[in-house]
Amino acid sequence: MGSAPVTSEGAFRRARRPEQKQQRYEAILDAAHALALRDGVAAVTLTAIAAEVGMHKSALLKYFGTREEIFLRLAESDWSAWADGLVADLGRGPVDEQQLVEVLTRSLVERPLICQMLTTHSALTFEREVPIEAARRSKSAAMQAAGEVADAVHAAFPALDPGASRELVIATGLMAASLWQVAHPAPVVAATFDRSPEERGFPQAAPIHFAEALARFIHIHLAGLRHV
Amino acid sequence: MGSAPVTSEGAFRRARRPEQKQQRYEAILDAAHALALRDGVAAVTLTAIAAEVGMHKSALLKYFGTREEIFLRLAESDWSAWADGLVADLGRGPVDEQQLVEVLTRSLVERPLICQMLTTHSALTFEREVPIEAARRSKSAAMQAAGEVADAVHAAFPALDPGASRELVIATGLMAASLWQVAHPAPVVAATFDRSPEERGFPQAAPIHFAEALARFIHIHLAGLRHV
Repeated sequence: MGSAPVTSEGAFRRARRPEQKQQRYEAILDAAHALALRDGVAAVTLTAIAAEVGMHKSALLKYFGTREEIFLRLAESDWSAWADGLVADLGRGPVDEQQLVEVLTRSLVERPLICQMLTTHSALTFEREVPIEAARRSKSAAMQAAGEVADAVHAAFPALDPGASRELVIATGLMAASLWQVAHPAPVVAATFDRSPEERGFPQAAPIHFAEALARFIHIHLAGLRHV
Repeated sequence: MGSAPVTSEGAFRRARRPEQKQQRYEAILDAAHALALRDGVAAVTLTAIAAEVGMHKSALLKYFGTREEIFLRLAESDWSAWADGLVADLGRGPVDEQQLVEVLTRSLVERPLICQMLTTHSALTFEREVPIEAARRSKSAAMQAAGEVADAVHAAFPALDPGASRELVIATGLMAASLWQVAHPAPVVAATFDRSPEERGFPQAAPIHFAEALARFIHIHLAGLRHV
């Protein structure tokens, strides 16, 4: 922030503490983000995050009580970045149906953390408690982002009215959550694809391709919203 | 199976053992199913299942290594029961669009275990290992069920060709997985709805209604599949 350097040791200590705390806080979030992009959210433990930041787990616990809190906080930032990106992309002018499908698809392909966090408000993931305020902030950020993106969709593609734009955005997000999971199976499930069709008992030879499947979904659902 | 009673103690013991094992095996599955319907899959521990069956956890571990294995096995049965139910319902004759939406919606509303297991092939849930054969069987059962239901949809509603019928069934399942999760939030997320709109930071006053949201989704997606 360009503040003047502080020279006396006492003053330096007082000034530095909140700044250091904020740096640590950001470093924890950055480390968790990097590990999640590399290994997937589910695989990232508090211990691994602490090791990545280079701090003791006990020190990390002063900033965040659980890994869920960290990922909720990251999701909160990602939601607004996702919305900002789409509002900018769609704000350049009217788009046709194919362009709308591509812009929405790319926005989620580029944000794997969001895809992994989309349905984590469920009982399935929150086995451990998180503070209600962390849950509220994350949910509020997601709803706000969906509203902004829906407005941008309607403005760039007026053939969809505001209600239909909102339905498209929400359905896209919910489908992205499921598609992400089946497109990125656990190793034991991925291993079943290595078997012959007779051995595995199903014809599909590989997990679905996330971007292709999501684009196809948006294409169909958009057509449906224009015809009901 | 109507086999003749076995009288000598040795023979009885030999005959009884596999039967007892099978009874225990079924009892474990029944207990896990009942607990999952009451509390949700995520909340059911191996310890709780053992207590419900009235056996020690160490004895239970001779049948199933992890809770995931138990739920994969339950899902396998549920998949074929789901398909059988739909094939019977749709086999009664042609249906109109509204009837197709209702039949598909009801089939998933009545099977909350499937809705909770639909995306569990993902890394998110399989933190612990399951045997590859358990994963393969469950995936094979799901794919087989989807194929049977798609055939039944096409037969009862020929306006959807076989490919579109398959896409509808798969999209319905994947959307049901996400909708189930947002319709059944963790307690900490559910608690945010108790706050005022200003305090919670989003207008929505309650979680979505699963059956309504799923029916609306199928209605729109079906229209889309008929128009692309």
